Amino acid sequence: MANSQYEYVKSYEIPDPLMPNTFAVIRVDGHAFTKFCHAHQFEKPNDIRALDLMNRAAKAVMQEFPDIVLAFGESDEYSFLMRRDASVYGRRRSKINSTVASIFTSNYVFYWNEFFPNTPLRYPPTFDSRVVLYPTAKEVRDYFSWRQVDTHINNLHNTCYWALRHDGESGTEATKLLEGTFSDNKNELLFTRFKVNYNNLPEYFKKGSVLVRTDPRLTKGPSKRDVPLSQCTETSGPTEPSGSAIAEADLSAPSLPGPESPAVAKKKERKKKPLKPFDGRSGPITILHTDIIKEKPFWEERPWLLE
Amino acid sequence: MANSQYEYVKSYEIPDPLMPNTFAVIRVDGHAFTKFCHAHQFEKPNDIRALDLMNRAAKAVMQEFPDIVLAFGESDEYSFLMRRDASVYGRRRSKINSTVASIFTSNYVFYWNEFFPNTPLRYPPTFDSRVVLYPTAKEVRDYFSWRQVDTHINNLHNTCYWALRHDGESGTEATKLLEGTFSDNKNELLFTRFKVNYNNLPEYFKKGSVLVRTDPRLTKGPSKRDVPLSQCTETSGPTEPSGSAIAEADLSAPSLPGPESPAVAKKKERKKKPLKPFDGRSGPITILHTDIIKEKPFWEERPWLLE
Amino acid sequence: MANSQYEYVKSYEIPDPLMPNTFAVIRVDGHAFTKFCHAHQFEKPNDIRALDLMNRAAKAVMQEFPDIVLAFGESDEYSFLMRRDASVYGRRRSKINSTVASIFTSNYVFYWNEFFPNTPLRYPPTFDSRVVLYPTAKEVRDYFSWRQVDTHINNLHNTCYWALRHDGESGTEATKLLEGTFSDNKNELLFTRFKVNYNNLPEYFKKGSVLVRTDPRLTKGPSKRDVPLSQCTETSGPTEPSGSAIAEADLSAPSLPGPESPAVAKKKERKKKPLKPFDGRSGPITILHTDIIKEKPFWEERPWLLE
Amino acid sequence: MANSQYEYVKSYEIPDPLMPNTFAVIRVDGHAFTKFCHAHQFEKPNDIRALDLMNRAAKAVMQEFPDIVLAFGESDEYSFLMRRDASVYGRRRSKINSTVASIFTSNYVFYWNEFFPNTPLRYPPTFDSRVVLYPTAKEVRDYFSWRQVDTHINNLHNTCYWALRHDGESGTEATKLLEGTFSDNKNELLFTRFKVNYNNLPEYFKKGSVLVRTDPRLTKGPSKRDVPLSQCTETSGPTEPSGSAIAEADLSAPSLPGPESPAVAKKKERKKKPLKPFDGRSGPITILHTDIIKEKPFWEERPWLLE
Repeated sequence: MANSQYEYVKSYEIPDPLMPNTFAVIRVDGHAFTKFCHAHQFEKPNDIRALDLMNRAAKAVMQEFPDIVLAFGESDEYSFLMRRDASVYGRRRSKINSTVASIFTSNYVFYWNEFFPNTPLRYPPTFDSRVVLYPTAKEVRDYFSWRQVDTHINNLHNTCYWALRHDGESGTEATKLLEGTFSDNKNELLFTRFKVNYNNLPEYFKKGSVLVRTDPRLTKGPSKRDVPLSQCTETSGPTEPSGSAIAEADLSAPSLPGPESPAVAKKKERKKKPLKPFDGRSGPITILHTDIIKEKPFWEERPWLLE
Repeated sequence: MANSQYEYVKSYEIPDPLMPNTFAVIRVDGHAFTKFCHAHQFEKPNDIRALDLMNRAAKAVMQEFPDIVLAFGESDEYSFLMRRDASVYGRRRSKINSTVASIFTSNYVFYWNEFFPNTPLRYPPTFDSRVVLYPTAKEVRDYFSWRQVDTHINNLHNTCYWALRHDGESGTEATKLLEGTFSDNKNELLFTRFKVNYNNLPEYFKKGSVLVRTDPRLTKGPSKRDVPLSQCTETSGPTEPSGSAIAEADLSAPSLPGPESPAVAKKKERKKKPLKPFDGRSGPITILHTDIIKEKPFWEERPWLLE
Repeated sequence: MANSQYEYVKSYEIPDPLMPNTFAVIRVDGHAFTKFCHAHQFEKPNDIRALDLMNRAAKAVMQEFPDIVLAFGESDEYSFLMRRDASVYGRRRSKINSTVASIFTSNYVFYWNEFFPNTPLRYPPTFDSRVVLYPTAKEVRDYFSWRQVDTHINNLHNTCYWALRHDGESGTEATKLLEGTFSDNKNELLFTRFKVNYNNLPEYFKKGSVLVRTDPRLTKGPSKRDVPLSQCTETSGPTEPSGSAIAEADLSAPSLPGPESPAVAKKKERKKKPLKPFDGRSGPITILHTDIIKEKPFWEERPWLLE
Repeated sequence: MANSQYEYVKSYEIPDPLMPNTFAVIRVDGHAFTKFCHAHQFEKPNDIRALDLMNRAAKAVMQEFPDIVLAFGESDEYSFLMRRDASVYGRRRSKINSTVASIFTSNYVFYWNEFFPNTPLRYPPTFDSRVVLYPTAKEVRDYFSWRQVDTHINNLHNTCYWALRHDGESGTEATKLLEGTFSDNKNELLFTRFKVNYNNLPEYFKKGSVLVRTDPRLTKGPSKRDVPLSQCTETSGPTEPSGSAIAEADLSAPSLPGPESPAVAKKKERKKKPLKPFDGRSGPITILHTDIIKEKPFWEERPWLLE
């Protein structure tokens, strides 16, 4: 039996390549996560287990796509930056978009038990995703600034809101008290009523999470300051959030390599080739909770992100 | 801190509505499933647990989207038909596409243990998806014929291939023996060498799986012949595959409703309104393993599918 | 000198095929025609020379595209219906769209002097165009109904407005007098103040212009009732508008062929093949000023338009 | 009569905005121009009247679109560069594309008699057009290099071909003689057989035509070296091709302004504001036949082109 008489229906698949040489940002968003958080009793304003799980799912996306060189997450959303020269899947929009959504979802469900050992997953969560194209580096930086500013605004608001709620205010009252307030009002409220200095809260919550690869040639030796995500989340597990610690790390001064054997040193001398510049497509994935709005040091140290 | 200076990046999101009044078929495909099947020791040529799990994930997609009125699955792929008048998510292509991929994936991982109680999931699987638009009913029917013919071709081939393998042939030899053979050659091979009449193999494998909703007004009474999927897969579980049984069911003669209480009968009489025709958007989801290439009885009995 | 190092820029041309098997309507619109009409002293409310010239340009578009089987024009706009099975230019949207705009424009300028022998063209006019896709025949009919209803509404309004202006009212006054009036108010105004029965105005103005091809096998003999456009506009010229006459013609009863020579009759007998049904892709182009909102007789007589 | 029941068909118009902040190149191409050239007895290999007419049509496009800051033409094609920040027509692709095709066509036909006073236009010519987007300045420069290299290759080939034809060779023989030859072979052929030094041929033919605006603040005074197109083609007419002369002009040293009245000088002094940098959106349009492949001096002198 030949299939030819029906195969013509394939011709209705319209090609949908992403414009060449443009940056693609893929943003994954939780679907109906207010309900999902409630059903799984997420801690408020921030549930570190849930954030760690988001980071774990995001890491899996980066592992599948070397061309994704940067990811930024907050709350129930994650944004992925794909290099402008990426050619994966012929740059087909639907293929890239649905694959990212699927990998993210799959890992979120798969690793749930590891991050929520005492909270069974009650029903399968959903994430949608979209691809947005940016022609220049400026827009890419502004995109990620947009998301990090949003993280700050939401976190400050949620910190106040849940402080009020935990202090006995109703949802309606809490909302009313925050209506029309600006950042400084909220900071003052926290300080005056709750003795909380917002600036001292964990960077993890204030800045969101940034995933980047580090140059493996710079991390051969032991380093106390640069901890790859795999170590954080996979070895030590989610119960020991190392987010803040990592954020403290000064990544601008990568660790020096350890002492070399004479053989290695000799081999190097023979080659004397200049190192090919790092392109961010391979190497261990590191999690940071750091400012990505200012140019320095984040972007300046990683010129490959916007190449 | 205002977010306005960066918000302009939102304007780069180009609208991507599906053309109005066209049928949309969303096809979900397993990514690298040869490896995945191997890693989880799927039975060959057909692993009923895996097929049941696919059906379970597909059902979840239909439960989320009332506008998806038909689904067809085989192997590691599933196709969903969305009504031409669907307005969900403003018909945004990326949103619909990624959500379907995510729901499917999420349910596949979530229900894994139920269908594979003795095989731990070793790593999270991925599915991609695409949306194809069809302007007329003819193309929609041809699309599903295309997939069902494909099911048949693949199943016949795989049945032969694995019969040979289980009989001691190497992969290379089995492939060589089947090279250039037609359907009748394969049928004969099965019969002569393995005493297998291909026609007697389960409809489940030969025809794939079809999900449709049934008119709830026709299934009030008890029926032995029409078994909704929820009952098959959720109550009896995957260990008792009821696929073939269902496929035997003659859905063209829906069960008569059982005896009514006088009160109900009275109420009905008062109304006497003509029944609104069934549109396939609500009601229990049923699984079938039946021919959908011929018009009768499948399409003829369900005119709402192509309305 | 090889061109290869720069040729990569070609790869940025993204394919833009029209969805297969959908009707395409290409609508051409005059750009800044209020100014253009004024600069060339078009008669108001309708300048028959200008309308004839529009028809001439539209005819040229149909001559270039056999797949365009219907065109409808009013004022400074023209809509073209392309068969759903058209494969011209690989259905590339930009190519089809720009070519239609260019042919229309080119002919409008080229034939200007023929239709406006005493009015030199002062500057070159511009038309833009767009392509809209429709999946079903119903939408195509509704599209053309939409344009013809628009023709009626505009013509009734303009007839009133210019009657008032020619009667000495200022533009402001005329506008004010018509504000908030309905069709029957306008009809009454025309009848009471100007003794004009709107129904008796030429069909050309009330119904717009419709271009279709007629089956050449039905028009071999001489016919007084069916006048092809070429004859109307090219032979008799624009000064003798034959629009209304044509509109009166009952196209449902095509003229009988004239007497045949015995040789022709013999040849016919030998063939005895059933006539291939007319598909509207060839044959003389005829202009009509007739109702295309009702199914009968326009659409019913030309089933090929919506095939 | 309300139009509402049919107006829904408007909703089928899918938005088609060009991606923000990308350069758009609109390329207009003559349709079936081999036949058109033949029908109008264009001189071979280059008809200066035809090239001047192309330039005139291109100038009209630039006059309509201030955002088009550069145009390059050769043979029967013209490419237009639109600034990346253009917002004209909401950046609607179809609208921009069809309008450019229409303006170009309209002006070509309108000005035909001026450039071909002794050759009546026998039928209306057609041009199609397409829009291609480029995210970076590099691609834009490479695009225009691609077209200018093409100009050179075609012109060298055509110069040889027509020299052979005018020397009595048949079309077949001429084609055969040039088959497989490289640039140096062709140069030699011209020099040996026809005593023609290709390098001495007019820049107009070798380099094509470039249209740019010049800063009006730099061209107030009389200048013999910088001749705006309007002067070339409109005043002196097409019989006096000034292309080569213009190409010789050193545009890098714009003419000094002429002597000023004391009042003007005073007014200037009062202002003392720094001049707003020229953006290429206004000012007289100049035609050049110059190298645009090298950065210097063309691109370096006009930084606004790629801003």
